[in-house]
Amino acid sequence: MSEELHRQKSIKRKAVIDAKIAKATEQRGVLILLKGNGKGKSSSAFGTMARSVGHGKHCAVVQFSKGRLETGEFKLFHRHPQIDWHVMGHGFTWETQDCARDIAAAEQAWQKAAELLADDSLDLIVLDEMSYMFKYDYLSVEPVVAALKARPRMQTVIITGRTMALGLQDIADTISVIQDERHAFRLGVKAQAGIEY
Amino acid sequence: MSEELHRQKSIKRKAVIDAKIAKATEQRGVLILLKGNGKGKSSSAFGTMARSVGHGKHCAVVQFSKGRLETGEFKLFHRHPQIDWHVMGHGFTWETQDCARDIAAAEQAWQKAAELLADDSLDLIVLDEMSYMFKYDYLSVEPVVAALKARPRMQTVIITGRTMALGLQDIADTISVIQDERHAFRLGVKAQAGIEY
Repeated sequence: MSEELHRQKSIKRKAVIDAKIAKATEQRGVLILLKGNGKGKSSSAFGTMARSVGHGKHCAVVQFSKGRLETGEFKLFHRHPQIDWHVMGHGFTWETQDCARDIAAAEQAWQKAAELLADDSLDLIVLDEMSYMFKYDYLSVEPVVAALKARPRMQTVIITGRTMALGLQDIADTISVIQDERHAFRLGVKAQAGIEY
Repeated sequence: MSEELHRQKSIKRKAVIDAKIAKATEQRGVLILLKGNGKGKSSSAFGTMARSVGHGKHCAVVQFSKGRLETGEFKLFHRHPQIDWHVMGHGFTWETQDCARDIAAAEQAWQKAAELLADDSLDLIVLDEMSYMFKYDYLSVEPVVAALKARPRMQTVIITGRTMALGLQDIADTISVIQDERHAFRLGVKAQAGIEY
């Protein structure tokens, strides 16, 4: 590409972006859903949290189905003064065979999340893997939608999980679908600390 | 769902997952590509880095087109003792109209990345927004593919960007496509510190 063509293309590209930026003027917290079967949903939520913490903001996390305390994100963040971290009572739901215990744990985690959603000192809340709670009928979506709608205006919420409840999709501001095009796991590579957890 | 049905489903689900886990035994670093037009590629890379740091691993970042020093991820991480952070010489490529300067900056950033890829004390390297370098012909993909192939066996590399060079896709272990289903920006919400940067 010639220098002049490059320059013209850059100017055009910048004009298009500047026009879009000029139109987006509203300032408020947003509801972000990260769904799909690909690798990167929870890590994206925690990366966004890292961004927020870097800007001095206060964040909270409720992990709904990864009940393990040995994840790298937990080790790095759970004692950070700007982060309030909560882990649901026990491990992956598909590792348990006790429905009543699962539902009680889900309900308890949701009570904690509801408290956080009413706290206007929190700038960002991550409800990690919450979507499975709806898929397995451990929680109803209606009270969650109501709490999200009633939350403080500047509070951003990120919810992750493979499939998303429709009620959440109706009120979301941003939805990203993370699709699995290839995964090292299927090539025979073992899940490893620092990458998968 | 009855208790018994739930229990049976859980057992079956666990058996399927356990069988998959038993098959994946290889231990090595992987090449992860995060592409697509949706929100969450860079944040996913930085979230994975947070995980790795939490597990005591050593990480490095080269940011190829976001040359800004005011991002939340930079503020939080750049002085962390386990993280080596490098930012390319100047701002977004589409904000410049100087092709020669862009190419020189890209080349310099790549030299740094090549050094890191040869360093076996590094467990994870993030090459953030590198894919634009190939799209705009600022870098050739061949030397990058060669350096990735020759890197230390346990080193994981994550490359982000909307479109990915085919040469990278050929050798990747994991590819996630992040698709934009909805974005707050199009609803008129301004990009904000802690969420978009």
